[in-house]
Amino acid sequence: MLLVRGGTVVTADCTRRADVLCDDSGRIAAVGPALEAPTGCAVVDAGGLLVMPGGIDPHTHMEMPFMGSVASDDFQTGTEAGVAGGTTTIIDFVIPERGGALLAAWKDWRAKAEKAVADYSFHVAVTHWDEQVHADMGTLARECGVNSFKHFMAYKGALMVDDGVLLRSIGRALELGALCNVHAENGDAVAFLQQDLLRRGLAGPASHPLSRPPTVEGEAAQRVIAIAGLLGAPVYIVHVSTEEAASAIAAARARGQRVYGEVLAQHLVIDDSVYADPDWLGAARHVMSPPFRPRHHQKALWAGLASGQLQTTATDHCCFCAGQKAQGRDDFTKIPNGTPGIEDRMSVLWHHGVRTGRLTPQEFVAVTSANTAKIFNIHPRKGAIMEGADADLVLWDAEASRTVSAATHHQNVDYNLYEGMTLTGLARHTISAGRLVWSDGDLRTVRGAGRYVERPCFGPD
Amino acid sequence: MLLVRGGTVVTADCTRRADVLCDDSGRIAAVGPALEAPTGCAVVDAGGLLVMPGGIDPHTHMEMPFMGSVASDDFQTGTEAGVAGGTTTIIDFVIPERGGALLAAWKDWRAKAEKAVADYSFHVAVTHWDEQVHADMGTLARECGVNSFKHFMAYKGALMVDDGVLLRSIGRALELGALCNVHAENGDAVAFLQQDLLRRGLAGPASHPLSRPPTVEGEAAQRVIAIAGLLGAPVYIVHVSTEEAASAIAAARARGQRVYGEVLAQHLVIDDSVYADPDWLGAARHVMSPPFRPRHHQKALWAGLASGQLQTTATDHCCFCAGQKAQGRDDFTKIPNGTPGIEDRMSVLWHHGVRTGRLTPQEFVAVTSANTAKIFNIHPRKGAIMEGADADLVLWDAEASRTVSAATHHQNVDYNLYEGMTLTGLARHTISAGRLVWSDGDLRTVRGAGRYVERPCFGPD
Amino acid sequence: MLLVRGGTVVTADCTRRADVLCDDSGRIAAVGPALEAPTGCAVVDAGGLLVMPGGIDPHTHMEMPFMGSVASDDFQTGTEAGVAGGTTTIIDFVIPERGGALLAAWKDWRAKAEKAVADYSFHVAVTHWDEQVHADMGTLARECGVNSFKHFMAYKGALMVDDGVLLRSIGRALELGALCNVHAENGDAVAFLQQDLLRRGLAGPASHPLSRPPTVEGEAAQRVIAIAGLLGAPVYIVHVSTEEAASAIAAARARGQRVYGEVLAQHLVIDDSVYADPDWLGAARHVMSPPFRPRHHQKALWAGLASGQLQTTATDHCCFCAGQKAQGRDDFTKIPNGTPGIEDRMSVLWHHGVRTGRLTPQEFVAVTSANTAKIFNIHPRKGAIMEGADADLVLWDAEASRTVSAATHHQNVDYNLYEGMTLTGLARHTISAGRLVWSDGDLRTVRGAGRYVERPCFGPD
Amino acid sequence: MLLVRGGTVVTADCTRRADVLCDDSGRIAAVGPALEAPTGCAVVDAGGLLVMPGGIDPHTHMEMPFMGSVASDDFQTGTEAGVAGGTTTIIDFVIPERGGALLAAWKDWRAKAEKAVADYSFHVAVTHWDEQVHADMGTLARECGVNSFKHFMAYKGALMVDDGVLLRSIGRALELGALCNVHAENGDAVAFLQQDLLRRGLAGPASHPLSRPPTVEGEAAQRVIAIAGLLGAPVYIVHVSTEEAASAIAAARARGQRVYGEVLAQHLVIDDSVYADPDWLGAARHVMSPPFRPRHHQKALWAGLASGQLQTTATDHCCFCAGQKAQGRDDFTKIPNGTPGIEDRMSVLWHHGVRTGRLTPQEFVAVTSANTAKIFNIHPRKGAIMEGADADLVLWDAEASRTVSAATHHQNVDYNLYEGMTLTGLARHTISAGRLVWSDGDLRTVRGAGRYVERPCFGPD
Ligand SMILES: [Zn+2]
Ligand SMILES: [Zn+2]
Ligand SMILES: [Zn+2]
Ligand SMILES: [Zn+2]
Ligand SMILES: [Zn+2]
Ligand SMILES: [Zn+2]
Ligand SMILES: [Zn+2]
Ligand SMILES: [Zn+2]
Repeated sequence: MLLVRGGTVVTADCTRRADVLCDDSGRIAAVGPALEAPTGCAVVDAGGLLVMPGGIDPHTHMEMPFMGSVASDDFQTGTEAGVAGGTTTIIDFVIPERGGALLAAWKDWRAKAEKAVADYSFHVAVTHWDEQVHADMGTLARECGVNSFKHFMAYKGALMVDDGVLLRSIGRALELGALCNVHAENGDAVAFLQQDLLRRGLAGPASHPLSRPPTVEGEAAQRVIAIAGLLGAPVYIVHVSTEEAASAIAAARARGQRVYGEVLAQHLVIDDSVYADPDWLGAARHVMSPPFRPRHHQKALWAGLASGQLQTTATDHCCFCAGQKAQGRDDFTKIPNGTPGIEDRMSVLWHHGVRTGRLTPQEFVAVTSANTAKIFNIHPRKGAIMEGADADLVLWDAEASRTVSAATHHQNVDYNLYEGMTLTGLARHTISAGRLVWSDGDLRTVRGAGRYVERPCFGPD
Repeated sequence: MLLVRGGTVVTADCTRRADVLCDDSGRIAAVGPALEAPTGCAVVDAGGLLVMPGGIDPHTHMEMPFMGSVASDDFQTGTEAGVAGGTTTIIDFVIPERGGALLAAWKDWRAKAEKAVADYSFHVAVTHWDEQVHADMGTLARECGVNSFKHFMAYKGALMVDDGVLLRSIGRALELGALCNVHAENGDAVAFLQQDLLRRGLAGPASHPLSRPPTVEGEAAQRVIAIAGLLGAPVYIVHVSTEEAASAIAAARARGQRVYGEVLAQHLVIDDSVYADPDWLGAARHVMSPPFRPRHHQKALWAGLASGQLQTTATDHCCFCAGQKAQGRDDFTKIPNGTPGIEDRMSVLWHHGVRTGRLTPQEFVAVTSANTAKIFNIHPRKGAIMEGADADLVLWDAEASRTVSAATHHQNVDYNLYEGMTLTGLARHTISAGRLVWSDGDLRTVRGAGRYVERPCFGPD
Repeated sequence: MLLVRGGTVVTADCTRRADVLCDDSGRIAAVGPALEAPTGCAVVDAGGLLVMPGGIDPHTHMEMPFMGSVASDDFQTGTEAGVAGGTTTIIDFVIPERGGALLAAWKDWRAKAEKAVADYSFHVAVTHWDEQVHADMGTLARECGVNSFKHFMAYKGALMVDDGVLLRSIGRALELGALCNVHAENGDAVAFLQQDLLRRGLAGPASHPLSRPPTVEGEAAQRVIAIAGLLGAPVYIVHVSTEEAASAIAAARARGQRVYGEVLAQHLVIDDSVYADPDWLGAARHVMSPPFRPRHHQKALWAGLASGQLQTTATDHCCFCAGQKAQGRDDFTKIPNGTPGIEDRMSVLWHHGVRTGRLTPQEFVAVTSANTAKIFNIHPRKGAIMEGADADLVLWDAEASRTVSAATHHQNVDYNLYEGMTLTGLARHTISAGRLVWSDGDLRTVRGAGRYVERPCFGPD
Repeated sequence: MLLVRGGTVVTADCTRRADVLCDDSGRIAAVGPALEAPTGCAVVDAGGLLVMPGGIDPHTHMEMPFMGSVASDDFQTGTEAGVAGGTTTIIDFVIPERGGALLAAWKDWRAKAEKAVADYSFHVAVTHWDEQVHADMGTLARECGVNSFKHFMAYKGALMVDDGVLLRSIGRALELGALCNVHAENGDAVAFLQQDLLRRGLAGPASHPLSRPPTVEGEAAQRVIAIAGLLGAPVYIVHVSTEEAASAIAAARARGQRVYGEVLAQHLVIDDSVYADPDWLGAARHVMSPPFRPRHHQKALWAGLASGQLQTTATDHCCFCAGQKAQGRDDFTKIPNGTPGIEDRMSVLWHHGVRTGRLTPQEFVAVTSANTAKIFNIHPRKGAIMEGADADLVLWDAEASRTVSAATHHQNVDYNLYEGMTLTGLARHTISAGRLVWSDGDLRTVRGAGRYVERPCFGPD
């Protein structure tokens, strides 16, 4: 047992002085102003700290095979980095090979994830349509704890699905009580622009954002919202990076549609000037999709989080080292897309969000864990601090600062997007399933201790 | 002490099986799955019921002197009606006479409210500007528990303030950490249209909505949002009744502005066809400002609540009996503006909101109590169910139905807007400050038992 | 030679008293207040009449093979009907068979059109993409007088193109100085909804609008605007029928994009209640795409024309008789899509547009001829009244009325959408290429007198 | 008589090769491809030049008493400068003293304007409301050729009117068939912000834009559009300088409202960086209202002109020399508001509008003369090139360049906003009332030759 004593408990709902007692089954046994420590109970001093639900990152890609490489952070190193930053749950993506079976892929990913040190769950991607996909969605939803399916409107010739598949899959998910996620970029347009840029000899990373301008994302967001609207289905748009997509979501919500939007911490603070880096690798390390954007988009993203029109924050954590990025040295379309970020998301949100007055501490909890838990139907097990909830906590030091560096981070990748950035607000201690797994800079995780989190489907309305 | 046993606790944040123990000081002593009843503790059986925070109505006018009459529900009868419907806290309005002192008026209202049977608080109206107002705002905010000030952009020649006063008052409130409320209708336009209608001999109640078309509200909402935006101040718009105003609020929020919107239960379900009633009194009883609207506005209001762009529901409860309404028999501009509603708000929201799928039960709690408590800075004392919070609870029977009628309601007024409407979802028991004040149709309130709720100002950012 | 004497000349630009002299080459020789009639010159008395440019219908389908039928109005009867209604030029569509060559199809259509009694021109449809299409577009643009290419985002499995083809074709047109036209409906969504309706046994014409809701059009309009925007190319959206598409166009224009929108006269005055007709044929006769819409969309279309955000009016004239419509008796997706309208467009616009105050007479000319001529680069040859312009005129009686009926119309089809509608404003006389072809109800056309109108490409910016 | 030979005539409607013959009454006698020069007729060689309607500047303030000064350009020097730049008509403003009679003021202004060298007309300002104003508006509209009235929503304590006056005046104008113009800035907000800035010791010209942020204009534009909409009246918003106001206008037009917007040439090309000029006078010379704006607003203004949502361009020409600007040396609110511009408007529009591809030459004519003539009901007398129209022409050299300088300009003021800017496109010759008044840099104007242009009211709908 573990007693968190003397802290200020902050949830999405309220802030109060309370102790938190974690039991040996990994759950919260009690929350109250002055709890007694049972005999033999370890005590963590949370004096001066904020006790918040452990972060949930709803969008990671650990050891994902992609574009001819495999992401360098595996489920162990990736979840360790998460824990070091206060994140105790990830929702990763099962991505079947082209034409491959969903269920088999889910099993593969289950196996890969067994080494995780903290809890994990899976969205499963639908990348084509046939009767087997229809059947597997049912099995996954009913028997495997999968209540969300992912779709790519980009990556033409690989993961991309057309509107017909989207309609079928979103319709199928609706009848199952599952939620569809969408990577919203117009893949035809991206492919066209890529070819056009290459044809003109513009093969460097500076072409990456030119091949995926904001319109490409805004269009796709509009489209999938329209499609979900035709079906009366909810939809969740991952990595919203533009004012255009954020507006489309807000407009749909104002019409009464249930649309959700996720923002990456990276997009909130880094802009497209990174692609002007004369150092090829410096620019290539920022190649991800959607790309970094002109600065004014950041304002829309922050406002979306503050107003509740965008609900979650994530990282799309997907690490590729210098050697891997180098695949695209002569052709930016071959640079593996992805950036690291799981370790720093919470600090970035606190420093740039809470300390600037954009978000209250309660809103911070909402966008780093509680909203995600609610949207993906694992609340109050996750994202809450109450009796019976999972004992996943971060003890947050709101005043301490650290300077980010790849030299000291726990991510298994050779760079950090925030290199040199000093952030105030950090995870002093992290508790996963009632165990102290990160304490004052000391990582105490156990390989394989992470559990697969089943997410039940939503009931019929 | 009182133990609420066997219910399902629903808050804005989550839903779970839990008992709730109320102590003798009127607070919640414990919340948990299977609480022991202390010796001598009364027990309420909440089996099959939802246990939710008691409703908060942030907009009532008990015994208000207005347009030559005094509203017929006083603080006793009005709060009794509230309790019968599951509402345990009201925030009423102190409205100084023209040019009158704020502090003195606040004292008058404190005196009038002593007879209340449930808790109450006050917004204080600023209806002119001078040094005394500036000083009184400070006193009220710092010493009297008033953290919100009200402004009327309508009622020209009476309560209306111009943009200069709005700027001064909103600016003053900002430095005090208080929030400004605004009745948003363009009073110049209303007066012009009223005169024009009267000049043309159109003196009946059907002219009332014609004198206050949606544009009149949309314009004022835009304007006060602009004004608050200039100052970087939050603003709360009362009784949003139009798509235009709802859109203005959503747009401001998407720009990062902190703007809040309140919706009246009445506007959600009653439309402007009521003014076509050939019976003068039938129409006159619906005279309130803003008036009832064409039906398509309701869709925008519901969507606003569901998407979180509108946050609270209220009633603007302000009762005038037939004899009072008759003042305006020959001139619709003399009909006292106001309608009853406090008793039925929660049922209307449940029946038309939750049962139709527009709102989840948690969103119901958010818009009937929790959001109001947060916005007016009395959360988690109010609007929450947790140890230490006020023991204000409603035990909700989600399946039982009742048919609304003035013959049976507790409001001290001779009609009910929802007469004959059958609503599913009702307050089976209501608990105020730990005491059972409404139980299975039996009103057990105590005159004067209500307490004045001080609302602290917000701290500096 | 022909002298039009005593009329009031109305153009898009101005209104003035003037005579118009037409020479024997079919051109206007002079415009002036009191022209002398040359010896032997015929004179038409235009006293009390408005002399306006002959109408241009930029969207017709004469004798088009479609859905297993051939449209019943051929180039002769269709242009005769046009002339009877004041329309002297049509722009029809060359639609190659699936995979067919553009140039060959253009030649086929040229041959078919030789029987036309008034001038005609052609948009050419791009329904797939390959090198031959790329080459043929060049030939058509440079040598054949084709400066516009048409694309269908609907009709999946038949005419529909995907975004990749749109990008290639719009890009190609841009380099040629040609303009792309788009039928904007999401064909994947239509096909999905059609199958869903049929599967549910809803096979009647009432399912037609359900398979193509406003969102389906709004989405596609947004998308093609985004695509054109990526290329910096102008785009022209045919038959805009929804508020959603109209808004998308206006928003793009407000960002500085050159987007044009066309409205069908039918959509301006007929709403979707027609599909509730219990008579199968009555409903089937209204099957066209986009379908008729709920009434509030009409307001947006009229406002678009009045504000200049929508520029042209057309008919999508495409006639199918009862026997042809009957193909879809058991399956609404087999009903040939199309409605007649060329003969009544001008009257509908005058009666419902000008007489209601929505449009000025000059705006009437703009939206019935001048704007079309400008957008398709045949102004001032067409759409203008000035020396040197083609002598295509309509002498408009603004006060005379007629009641529309299939019994009396000149369209070769067995019904009229406006059957029984009395319209004020009609073509008293129509002059095509300087010859009186319609005079007081007397049709004086000559088979084959119509000329092919070459439209030059736009120069480089 | 004067024959303009060999030019390319460009109007808002079309472009063609034509000669223009001006008669001795100052009107156009003929327009045609190869006109004969009557005996004794002077000939101007327009070879290589564009022959366009002389510019109309609908917003000037010659010799206006304002803020304790009198604008330095009088009706002679101001119209001379106009002619040198290709502008042949101005519409100036009659501004009665506070509480003063409209009719008397109009007579004063008539007298002052007698020295004008080119045509002029007057808007008359309504700055308060009483029965005399009501009566004078009737007299002016019916007997004095005034069809437009001006209103200031800013300049609190001086020219500002409240919403009640706006409603009365716009309503009165509607019944007269006149059009209301509005300076849209929230005067209460400006006054509040000015005082706040001064109180904080920020008394320099850099405070000017801070006292009038974009919101101040956007709000007022929204408001007056709402007010006009309540009355069903058209409204014309002068000097639209912000994206916010431009959007409000576009939105109203999309709802079917007749709203017009005017843009100043200055706002199209100069941004708010001018206020950072460390030289007090440099900054003070840019003090005008609305102020210069951040650069992104310019995009919205250009797009508004190109899309037709903003219709006219003007200058608000109002000159104050260094000594006059110095009045506000210690207090920016005392700097006389105004900038020069009449001489350069046409060149600025051509260089930055036409040569950049934002506007076509025909659109250039529309926004520099034709639209203004239409909106203010003097078309085709002005703004057109056709028989019978006033012979006001500019012979435009589209390829020639000049560098702007106060040293060489004809404006009676000691600076030029565009100092040092090289503009391509200039007035080679200007013809006013059939007389060559500017020719190759030689000013040939005659004091008093300008005529008062009566503008008839619009008829009842
Ligand atoms: Zn993605
Ligand atoms: Zn991803
Ligand atoms: Zn009110
Ligand atoms: Zn009220
Ligand atoms: Zn079509
Ligand atoms: Zn068509
Ligand atoms: Zn002004
Ligand atoms: Zn001015």
